[in-house]
Amino acid sequence: MPRFFVAGTNLAGGMVYIRGRDADHIRVLRIRPGEMVTVCDGDGYDYECRLVNSEKGEAQLEIVRKKECDTEPSIEVTLLCGLPKGNDRTDYILQKAVECGVTNIGFFQSNRCVAKLDDPQKKVERWQRIAEEAAKQSGRGIIPEVAWAGDYVNALNEAIHTELPLMMYETGERVPLNEALKKSREVKTACIITGPEGGFESYEADMARKLGIQVCTMGNRILRCETAPIVALTALMYESGNLS
Amino acid sequence: MPRFFVAGTNLAGGMVYIRGRDADHIRVLRIRPGEMVTVCDGDGYDYECRLVNSEKGEAQLEIVRKKECDTEPSIEVTLLCGLPKGNDRTDYILQKAVECGVTNIGFFQSNRCVAKLDDPQKKVERWQRIAEEAAKQSGRGIIPEVAWAGDYVNALNEAIHTELPLMMYETGERVPLNEALKKSREVKTACIITGPEGGFESYEADMARKLGIQVCTMGNRILRCETAPIVALTALMYESGNLS
Repeated sequence: MPRFFVAGTNLAGGMVYIRGRDADHIRVLRIRPGEMVTVCDGDGYDYECRLVNSEKGEAQLEIVRKKECDTEPSIEVTLLCGLPKGNDRTDYILQKAVECGVTNIGFFQSNRCVAKLDDPQKKVERWQRIAEEAAKQSGRGIIPEVAWAGDYVNALNEAIHTELPLMMYETGERVPLNEALKKSREVKTACIITGPEGGFESYEADMARKLGIQVCTMGNRILRCETAPIVALTALMYESGNLS
Repeated sequence: MPRFFVAGTNLAGGMVYIRGRDADHIRVLRIRPGEMVTVCDGDGYDYECRLVNSEKGEAQLEIVRKKECDTEPSIEVTLLCGLPKGNDRTDYILQKAVECGVTNIGFFQSNRCVAKLDDPQKKVERWQRIAEEAAKQSGRGIIPEVAWAGDYVNALNEAIHTELPLMMYETGERVPLNEALKKSREVKTACIITGPEGGFESYEADMARKLGIQVCTMGNRILRCETAPIVALTALMYESGNLS
Protein backbone atom coordinates (compact mmCIF):
# COMPACT_ATOMS: atom_id res chain seq x y z
CA MET A 1 0.00 0.00 0.00
CA PRO A 2 1.46 3.45 -0.88
CA ARG A 3 2.66 5.30 2.19
CA PHE A 4 2.68 9.03 3.00
CA PHE A 5 3.80 11.09 5.96
CA VAL A 6 1.67 13.98 7.22
CA ALA A 7 1.96 16.36 10.14
CA GLY A 8 -0.58 15.75 12.92
CA THR A 9 -2.33 19.03 12.10
CA ASN A 10 -3.49 17.52 8.82
CA LEU A 11 -5.34 14.75 10.64
CA ALA A 12 -8.72 16.03 11.84
CA GLY A 13 -12.30 14.83 12.21
CA GLY A 14 -11.67 11.44 10.72
CA MET A 15 -10.12 13.01 7.61
CA VAL A 16 -6.57 13.44 6.37
CA TYR A 17 -5.37 16.18 4.05
CA ILE A 18 -2.29 15.54 1.97
CA ARG A 19 -0.89 18.67 0.36
CA GLY A 20 1.88 19.76 -1.99
CA ARG A 21 4.30 17.37 -3.64
CA ASP A 22 2.73 14.29 -2.02
CA ALA A 23 -0.73 15.26 -3.31
CA ASP A 24 0.71 15.43 -6.81
CA HIS A 25 2.41 12.09 -6.23
CA ILE A 26 -1.00 10.51 -5.51
CA ARG A 27 -2.06 11.64 -9.00
CA VAL A 28 1.15 10.37 -10.58
CA LEU A 29 0.56 6.97 -8.94
CA ARG A 30 -2.99 7.04 -10.44
CA ILE A 31 -4.55 6.24 -7.08
CA ARG A 32 -8.32 6.63 -7.55
CA PRO A 33 -11.11 7.55 -5.09
CA GLY A 34 -12.02 4.47 -3.08
CA GLU A 35 -8.48 3.07 -3.13
CA MET A 36 -6.45 2.68 0.06
CA VAL A 37 -3.20 4.30 1.16
CA THR A 38 -1.34 4.34 4.47
CA VAL A 39 -0.79 7.69 6.13
CA CYS A 40 1.77 7.92 8.88
CA ASP A 41 1.77 10.73 11.45
CA GLY A 42 5.50 10.38 12.10
CA ASP A 43 4.66 9.98 15.76
CA GLY A 44 4.06 6.26 16.12
CA TYR A 45 0.71 5.78 14.35
CA ASP A 46 -0.33 4.54 10.92
CA TYR A 47 -3.74 5.38 9.45
CA GLU A 48 -5.27 3.22 6.76
CA CYS A 49 -7.14 5.70 4.62
CA ARG A 50 -9.51 5.64 1.67
CA LEU A 51 -8.97 8.32 -0.98
CA VAL A 52 -12.04 10.56 -1.25
CA ASN A 53 -10.87 13.24 -3.63
CA SER A 54 -7.61 14.11 -5.32
CA GLU A 55 -6.81 17.44 -6.94
CA LYS A 56 -3.64 19.22 -7.91
CA GLY A 57 -2.04 20.27 -4.64
CA GLU A 58 -4.47 18.56 -2.25
CA ALA A 59 -5.91 15.11 -1.63
CA GLN A 60 -8.63 14.31 0.91
CA LEU A 61 -8.81 10.89 2.54
CA GLU A 62 -11.05 9.37 5.17
CA ILE A 63 -9.47 7.39 8.01
CA VAL A 64 -10.63 3.76 8.06
CA ARG A 65 -8.37 2.40 10.77
CA LYS A 66 -5.72 3.72 13.14
CA LYS A 67 -3.00 1.39 14.38
CA GLU A 68 0.31 1.56 16.13
CA CYS A 69 3.23 1.58 13.75
CA ASP A 70 5.37 -1.52 14.40
CA THR A 71 8.41 -0.80 12.28
CA GLU A 72 10.37 1.49 14.60
CA PRO A 73 13.31 -0.02 16.47
CA SER A 74 13.57 0.16 20.26
CA ILE A 75 16.80 2.14 20.00
CA GLU A 76 17.44 5.58 18.50
CA VAL A 77 20.60 5.36 16.44
CA THR A 78 22.46 8.38 15.15
CA LEU A 79 24.79 7.63 12.27
CA LEU A 80 27.62 10.10 11.65
CA CYS A 81 29.73 9.56 8.53
CA GLY A 82 32.79 11.34 7.20
CA LEU A 83 31.57 13.06 4.04
CA PRO A 84 32.38 10.72 1.13
CA LYS A 85 33.18 11.87 -2.38
CA GLY A 86 30.29 11.77 -4.82
CA ASN A 87 26.52 11.67 -4.49
CA ASP A 88 26.42 7.93 -5.13
CA ARG A 89 27.95 7.13 -1.78
CA THR A 90 25.98 9.60 0.33
CA ASP A 91 22.74 8.52 -1.35
CA TYR A 92 23.55 4.88 -0.78
CA ILE A 93 24.29 5.44 2.91
CA LEU A 94 21.10 7.44 3.36
CA GLN A 95 18.83 4.97 1.60
CA LYS A 96 20.20 1.84 3.25
CA ALA A 97 20.53 3.35 6.73
CA VAL A 98 16.88 4.41 6.64
CA GLU A 99 15.85 0.89 5.59
CA CYS A 100 17.92 -0.48 8.46
CA GLY A 101 16.17 1.68 11.05
CA VAL A 102 18.41 4.71 11.68
CA THR A 103 16.86 7.74 13.45
CA ASN A 104 19.36 10.50 12.63
CA ILE A 105 22.04 10.75 9.97
CA GLY A 106 24.76 13.36 9.75
CA PHE A 107 27.77 13.85 7.52
CA PHE A 108 30.85 15.59 8.85
CA GLN A 109 34.16 16.94 7.61
CA SER A 110 37.26 15.24 9.01
CA ASN A 111 40.91 15.59 8.08
CA ARG A 112 41.00 13.06 5.26
CA CYS A 113 37.71 14.05 3.60
CA VAL A 114 38.38 14.72 -0.08
CA ALA A 115 34.93 16.17 -0.70
CA LYS A 116 34.16 19.71 0.42
CA LEU A 117 30.73 21.30 0.69
CA ASP A 118 30.30 24.97 -0.18
CA ASP A 119 26.64 25.04 0.63
CA PRO A 120 25.75 22.26 3.10
CA GLN A 121 22.14 23.44 3.45
CA LYS A 122 21.41 22.79 -0.21
CA LYS A 123 22.76 19.26 0.13
CA VAL A 124 20.79 18.64 3.31
CA GLU A 125 17.54 19.35 1.47
CA ARG A 126 18.44 16.81 -1.18
CA TRP A 127 19.56 14.26 1.44
CA GLN A 128 16.35 14.76 3.39
CA ARG A 129 14.26 13.98 0.29
CA ILE A 130 16.20 10.73 -0.19
CA ALA A 131 15.59 9.80 3.46
CA GLU A 132 11.88 10.55 3.07
CA GLU A 133 11.56 8.36 -0.03
CA ALA A 134 13.39 5.52 1.73
CA ALA A 135 11.19 5.92 4.82
CA LYS A 136 8.04 5.61 2.70
CA GLN A 137 9.38 2.64 0.81
CA SER A 138 10.55 0.70 3.85
CA GLY A 139 7.42 1.39 5.91
CA ARG A 140 9.10 3.49 8.59
CA GLY A 141 7.05 5.24 11.27
CA ILE A 142 9.20 8.37 11.14
CA ILE A 143 11.23 10.22 8.55
CA PRO A 144 14.81 10.03 9.85
CA GLU A 145 16.39 13.44 10.11
CA VAL A 146 19.43 14.26 8.00
CA ALA A 147 21.80 17.04 8.97
CA TRP A 148 25.17 18.52 8.18
CA ALA A 149 27.16 17.58 11.29
CA GLY A 150 29.87 20.18 10.73
CA ASP A 151 33.46 19.36 11.58
CA TYR A 152 34.81 16.35 13.41
CA VAL A 153 34.66 18.00 16.82
CA ASN A 154 30.97 18.74 16.36
CA ALA A 155 30.38 15.13 15.35
CA LEU A 156 32.21 13.87 18.45
CA ASN A 157 30.19 16.21 20.60
CA GLU A 158 26.96 14.87 19.15
CA ALA A 159 28.12 11.28 19.68
CA ILE A 160 29.01 11.66 23.36
CA HIS A 161 25.51 12.86 24.12
CA THR A 162 24.19 9.37 23.33
CA GLU A 163 24.37 6.42 25.75
CA LEU A 164 26.46 4.21 23.49
CA PRO A 165 28.88 6.16 21.28
CA LEU A 166 30.91 3.95 18.93
CA MET A 167 33.50 4.65 16.28
CA MET A 168 34.59 2.19 13.58
CA TYR A 169 38.33 2.33 12.92
CA GLU A 170 40.76 0.25 10.86
CA THR A 171 43.95 0.01 12.88
CA GLY A 172 45.51 0.02 16.31
CA GLU A 173 43.98 -0.79 19.65
CA ARG A 174 40.27 -1.44 19.24
CA VAL A 175 37.33 -3.08 20.96
CA PRO A 176 35.75 -6.00 19.04
CA LEU A 177 32.35 -4.80 17.84
CA ASN A 178 30.49 -7.63 19.60
CA GLU A 179 32.06 -6.62 22.93
CA ALA A 180 31.09 -3.00 22.43
CA LEU A 181 27.52 -3.92 21.49
CA LYS A 182 26.85 -5.99 24.61
CA LYS A 183 25.29 -2.95 26.25
CA SER A 184 23.02 -2.22 23.30
CA ARG A 185 19.93 -3.90 24.77
CA GLU A 186 20.06 -1.65 27.83
CA VAL A 187 20.27 1.73 26.10
CA LYS A 188 17.77 3.92 24.31
CA THR A 189 20.26 5.92 22.24
CA ALA A 190 23.46 5.06 20.40
CA CYS A 191 25.76 6.65 17.86
CA ILE A 192 27.93 5.11 15.15
CA ILE A 193 30.79 7.14 13.65
CA THR A 194 32.46 6.00 10.41
CA GLY A 195 35.16 7.62 8.34
CA PRO A 196 35.51 8.96 4.79
CA GLU A 197 37.30 7.02 2.00
CA GLY A 198 40.73 7.66 3.48
CA GLY A 199 39.71 6.70 7.01
CA PHE A 200 40.63 8.60 10.15
CA GLU A 201 43.93 10.03 11.33
CA SER A 202 45.22 8.22 14.43
CA TYR A 203 44.89 11.43 16.44
CA GLU A 204 41.22 11.55 15.47
CA ALA A 205 40.73 8.05 16.87
CA ASP A 206 42.69 9.00 20.02
CA MET A 207 40.49 12.00 20.55
CA ALA A 208 37.37 9.86 20.31
CA ARG A 209 38.84 7.36 22.77
CA LYS A 210 39.67 10.09 25.28
CA LEU A 211 36.08 11.30 25.12
CA GLY A 212 34.80 7.85 26.12
CA ILE A 213 33.78 6.71 22.64
CA GLN A 214 34.50 3.01 22.09
CA VAL A 215 36.79 2.65 19.09
CA CYS A 216 35.74 -0.64 17.45
CA THR A 217 36.93 -3.17 14.92
CA MET A 218 34.64 -5.05 12.53
CA GLY A 219 37.36 -7.55 11.59
CA ASN A 220 40.15 -7.58 9.04
CA ARG A 221 38.23 -7.23 5.82
CA ILE A 222 38.35 -3.71 4.44
CA LEU A 223 34.89 -2.20 4.12
CA ARG A 224 34.26 0.71 1.77
CA CYS A 225 33.25 3.97 3.38
CA GLU A 226 29.66 3.50 2.20
CA THR A 227 29.52 -0.14 3.39
CA ALA A 228 30.93 0.26 6.91
CA PRO A 229 28.06 2.38 8.30
CA ILE A 230 25.43 -0.08 7.03
CA VAL A 231 27.30 -3.11 8.39
CA ALA A 232 27.80 -1.44 11.79
CA LEU A 233 24.18 -0.31 11.94
CA THR A 234 22.95 -3.79 11.00
CA ALA A 235 25.08 -5.37 13.74
CA LEU A 236 23.72 -2.88 16.28
CA MET A 237 20.12 -3.53 15.21
CA TYR A 238 20.73 -7.26 15.33
CA GLU A 239 22.37 -7.24 18.77
CA SER A 240 19.72 -4.94 20.26
CA GLY A 241 16.93 -7.27 19.11
CA ASN A 242 15.66 -5.08 16.30
CA LEU A 243 16.24 -7.40 13.37
CA SER A 244 13.66 -10.11 13.95
CA MET B 1 49.12 -2.06 -0.73
CA PRO B 2 47.70 -3.15 -4.13
CA ARG B 3 46.49 -6.74 -4.08
CA PHE B 4 46.50 -9.40 -6.80
CA PHE B 5 45.35 -12.99 -6.97
CA VAL B 6 47.51 -15.61 -8.72
CA ALA B 7 47.19 -19.35 -9.18
CA GLY B 8 49.69 -21.38 -7.12
CA THR B 9 51.49 -22.44 -10.32
CA ASN B 10 52.68 -18.87 -10.78
CA LEU B 11 54.48 -18.94 -7.44
CA ALA B 12 57.84 -20.66 -7.83
CA GLY B 13 61.40 -20.38 -6.56
CA GLY B 14 60.77 -17.28 -4.49
CA MET B 15 59.28 -15.51 -7.49
CA VAL B 16 55.74 -14.67 -8.59
CA TYR B 17 54.61 -14.15 -12.16
CA ILE B 18 51.54 -12.02 -12.77
CA ARG B 19 50.18 -12.33 -16.31
CA GLY B 20 47.45 -10.90 -18.52
CA ARG B 21 45.03 -8.19 -17.42
CA ASP B 22 46.56 -7.94 -13.92
CA ALA B 23 50.04 -7.40 -15.37
CA ASP B 24 48.67 -4.52 -17.40
CA HIS B 25 46.93 -3.22 -14.30
CA ILE B 26 50.31 -3.00 -12.53
CA ARG B 27 51.44 -0.67 -15.31
CA VAL B 28 48.22 1.36 -15.12
CA LEU B 29 48.78 1.79 -11.38
CA ARG B 30 52.33 2.99 -12.19
CA ILE B 31 53.86 0.58 -9.70
CA ARG B 32 57.63 0.73 -10.23
CA PRO B 33 60.38 -1.85 -9.66
CA GLY B 34 61.23 -1.92 -5.95
CA GLU B 35 57.69 -1.10 -4.84
CA MET B 36 55.60 -3.59 -2.85
CA VAL B 37 52.36 -5.37 -3.69
CA THR B 38 50.46 -8.17 -1.98
CA VAL B 39 49.93 -11.36 -3.94
CA CYS B 40 47.30 -13.78 -2.70
CA ASP B 41 47.31 -17.45 -3.71
CA GLY B 42 43.56 -17.80 -3.11
CA ASP B 43 44.35 -20.67 -0.81
CA GLY B 44 44.91 -18.98 2.51
CA TYR B 45 48.27 -17.27 2.04
CA ASP B 46 49.35 -13.72 1.26
CA TYR B 47 52.78 -12.94 -0.16
CA GLU B 48 54.33 -9.52 0.26
CA CYS B 49 56.27 -9.06 -2.95
CA ARG B 50 58.68 -6.55 -4.46
CA LEU B 51 58.21 -5.73 -8.12
CA VAL B 52 61.29 -6.71 -10.12
CA ASN B 53 60.19 -6.13 -13.67
CA SER B 54 56.96 -5.13 -15.36
CA GLU B 55 56.22 -5.55 -19.05
CA LYS B 56 53.08 -5.62 -21.13
CA GLY B 57 51.42 -8.93 -20.29
CA GLU B 58 53.82 -10.07 -17.55
CA ALA B 59 55.20 -8.78 -14.26
CA GLN B 60 57.90 -10.51 -12.20
CA LEU B 61 58.01 -10.07 -8.44
CA GLU B 62 60.20 -11.49 -5.70
CA ILE B 63 58.58 -12.83 -2.56
CA VAL B 64 59.70 -10.95 0.57
CA ARG B 65 57.38 -12.50 3.14
CA LYS B 66 54.71 -15.20 3.24
CA LYS B 67 51.96 -14.97 5.82
CA GLU B 68 48.62 -16.54 6.56
CA CYS B 69 45.74 -14.50 5.24
CA ASP B 70 43.56 -13.40 8.17
CA THR B 71 40.54 -11.98 6.40
CA GLU B 72 38.57 -15.14 5.66
CA PRO B 73 35.58 -15.91 7.90
CA SER B 74 35.28 -19.21 9.79
CA ILE B 75 32.07 -20.02 7.94
CA GLU B 76 31.47 -20.58 4.22
CA VAL B 77 28.36 -18.70 3.26
CA THR B 78 26.53 -19.20 -0.02
CA LEU B 79 24.23 -16.35 -0.95
CA LEU B 80 21.43 -17.12 -3.39
CA CYS B 81 19.35 -14.20 -4.64
CA GLY B 82 16.33 -14.00 -6.90
CA LEU B 83 17.59 -12.24 -10.03
CA PRO B 84 16.80 -8.54 -9.60
CA LYS B 85 16.05 -6.17 -12.46
CA GLY B 86 18.99 -4.09 -13.64
CA ASN B 87 22.73 -4.34 -13.35
CA ASP B 88 22.83 -1.79 -10.52
CA ARG B 89 21.23 -4.19 -8.07
CA THR B 90 23.21 -7.30 -9.00
CA ASP B 91 26.44 -5.32 -8.95
CA TYR B 92 25.61 -3.86 -5.59
CA ILE B 93 24.83 -7.26 -4.09
CA LEU B 94 28.04 -8.74 -5.50
CA GLN B 95 30.32 -5.96 -4.31
CA LYS B 96 28.88 -5.66 -0.81
CA ALA B 97 28.53 -9.41 -0.23
CA VAL B 98 32.20 -9.92 -1.13
CA GLU B 99 33.20 -7.15 1.29
CA CYS B 100 31.08 -8.84 3.97
CA GLY B 101 32.81 -12.22 3.55
CA VAL B 102 30.59 -14.33 1.28
CA THR B 103 32.14 -17.47 -0.30
CA ASN B 104 29.68 -18.24 -3.12
CA ILE B 105 27.03 -16.09 -4.78
CA GLY B 106 24.33 -17.30 -7.13
CA PHE B 107 21.36 -15.65 -8.78
CA PHE B 108 18.26 -17.68 -9.58
CA GLN B 109 14.97 -17.33 -11.42
CA SER B 110 11.85 -17.57 -9.28
CA ASN B 111 8.22 -16.95 -10.13
CA ARG B 112 8.14 -13.21 -9.51
CA CYS B 113 11.45 -12.36 -11.17
CA VAL B 114 10.85 -9.60 -13.71
CA ALA B 115 14.32 -9.88 -15.22
CA LYS B 116 15.10 -12.73 -17.60
CA LEU B 117 18.55 -13.83 -18.75
CA ASP B 118 19.00 -15.04 -22.30
CA ASP B 119 22.66 -15.79 -21.89
CA PRO B 120 23.49 -16.41 -18.20
CA GLN B 121 27.09 -17.37 -18.98
CA LYS B 122 27.87 -13.93 -20.38
CA LYS B 123 26.48 -12.33 -17.25
CA VAL B 124 28.41 -14.69 -15.00
CA GLU B 125 31.71 -13.54 -16.54
CA ARG B 126 30.79 -9.93 -15.81
CA TRP B 127 29.64 -10.77 -12.27
CA GLN B 128 32.82 -12.71 -11.61
CA ARG B 129 34.95 -9.69 -12.57
CA ILE B 130 33.00 -7.54 -10.11
CA ALA B 131 33.56 -10.13 -7.37
CA GLU B 132 37.28 -10.23 -8.16
CA GLU B 133 37.60 -6.45 -7.97
CA ALA B 134 35.75 -6.40 -4.65
CA ALA B 135 37.91 -9.24 -3.31
CA LYS B 136 41.09 -7.30 -4.14
CA GLN B 137 39.74 -4.10 -2.67
CA SER B 138 38.52 -5.63 0.59
CA GLY B 139 41.63 -7.77 1.16
CA ARG B 140 39.92 -11.14 0.78
CA GLY B 141 41.97 -14.35 0.77
CA ILE B 142 39.84 -15.90 -1.99
CA ILE B 143 37.85 -14.69 -4.95
CA PRO B 144 34.26 -15.65 -4.14
CA GLU B 145 32.71 -17.69 -6.92
CA VAL B 146 29.70 -16.33 -8.75
CA ALA B 147 27.33 -18.62 -10.61
CA TRP B 148 23.98 -18.70 -12.32
CA ALA B 149 21.95 -20.83 -9.91
CA GLY B 150 19.24 -21.71 -12.45
CA ASP B 151 15.62 -21.98 -11.36
CA TYR B 152 14.25 -21.89 -7.84
CA VAL B 153 14.35 -25.66 -7.40
CA ASN B 154 18.06 -25.69 -8.24
CA ALA B 155 18.62 -22.93 -5.71
CA LEU B 156 16.76 -24.85 -3.00
CA ASN B 157 18.76 -27.93 -3.82
CA GLU B 158 22.01 -26.03 -3.41
CA ALA B 159 20.81 -24.54 -0.12
CA ILE B 160 19.89 -27.85 1.52
CA HIS B 161 23.38 -29.16 0.95
CA THR B 162 24.69 -26.64 3.50
CA GLU B 163 24.45 -27.10 7.28
CA LEU B 164 22.39 -23.99 7.93
CA PRO B 165 20.00 -23.16 5.07
CA LEU B 166 17.99 -19.95 5.65
CA MET B 167 15.44 -18.07 3.61
CA MET B 168 14.36 -14.46 4.22
CA TYR B 169 10.64 -13.96 3.68
CA GLU B 170 8.21 -11.09 4.33
CA THR B 171 4.98 -12.64 5.56
CA GLY B 172 3.37 -15.56 7.37
CA GLU B 173 4.87 -17.97 9.86
CA ARG B 174 8.58 -17.29 10.24
CA VAL B 175 11.49 -17.88 12.58
CA PRO B 176 13.07 -14.72 14.05
CA LEU B 177 16.50 -14.37 12.44
CA ASN B 178 18.31 -14.35 15.79
CA GLU B 179 16.70 -17.71 16.69
CA ALA B 180 17.72 -19.22 13.38
CA LEU B 181 21.28 -17.96 13.71
CA LYS B 182 21.90 -19.50 17.14
CA LYS B 183 23.44 -22.53 15.44
CA SER B 184 25.76 -20.44 13.30
CA ARG B 185 28.81 -20.80 15.55
CA GLU B 186 28.67 -24.59 15.28
CA VAL B 187 28.52 -24.93 11.50
CA LYS B 188 31.06 -24.61 8.71
CA THR B 189 28.61 -23.90 5.88
CA ALA B 190 25.43 -21.87 5.59
CA CYS B 191 23.19 -20.55 2.86
CA ILE B 192 21.03 -17.42 2.68
CA ILE B 193 18.20 -17.21 0.13
CA THR B 194 16.57 -13.85 -0.66
CA GLY B 195 13.90 -12.96 -3.19
CA PRO B 196 13.63 -10.65 -6.20
CA GLU B 197 11.82 -7.25 -6.08
CA GLY B 198 8.38 -8.82 -5.88
CA GLY B 199 9.35 -11.30 -3.17
CA PHE B 200 8.42 -14.96 -3.11
CA GLU B 201 5.10 -16.71 -3.73
CA SER B 202 3.76 -18.33 -0.55
CA TYR B 203 4.10 -21.75 -2.18
CA GLU B 204 7.77 -21.02 -2.76
CA ALA B 205 8.21 -20.34 0.96
CA ASP B 206 6.22 -23.49 1.81
CA MET B 207 8.43 -25.57 -0.43
CA ALA B 208 11.55 -24.25 1.31
CA ARG B 209 10.03 -24.97 4.71
CA LYS B 210 9.18 -28.56 3.75
CA LEU B 211 12.78 -29.08 2.68
CA GLY B 212 14.02 -28.09 6.14
CA ILE B 213 15.08 -24.57 5.26
CA GLN B 214 14.36 -22.11 8.07
CA VAL B 215 12.09 -19.36 6.75
CA CYS B 216 13.13 -16.23 8.66
CA THR B 217 11.97 -12.73 9.44
CA MET B 218 14.28 -9.73 9.78
CA GLY B 219 11.53 -7.59 11.35
CA ASN B 220 8.78 -5.38 9.97
CA ARG B 221 10.76 -2.87 7.99
CA ILE B 222 10.68 -3.59 4.27
CA LEU B 223 14.16 -4.13 2.88
CA ARG B 224 14.85 -3.70 -0.82
CA CYS B 225 15.86 -6.81 -2.71
CA GLU B 226 19.45 -5.59 -2.89
CA THR B 227 19.56 -4.65 0.82
CA ALA B 228 18.10 -7.83 2.33
CA PRO B 229 20.98 -10.16 1.33
CA ILE B 230 23.60 -7.80 2.77
CA VAL B 231 21.71 -7.32 6.03
CA ALA B 232 21.15 -11.08 6.43
CA LEU B 233 24.79 -11.83 5.59
CA THR B 234 26.00 -9.19 8.05
CA ALA B 235 23.82 -10.65 10.82
CA LEU B 236 25.16 -14.13 10.09
CA MET B 237 28.77 -12.90 10.11
CA TYR B 238 28.13 -11.01 13.32
CA GLU B 239 26.45 -13.92 15.13
CA SER B 240 29.10 -16.42 14.00
CA GLY B 241 31.87 -14.21 15.41
CA ASN B 242 33.21 -13.02 12.06
CA LEU B 243 32.65 -9.30 12.46
CA SER B 244 35.20 -8.40 15.11
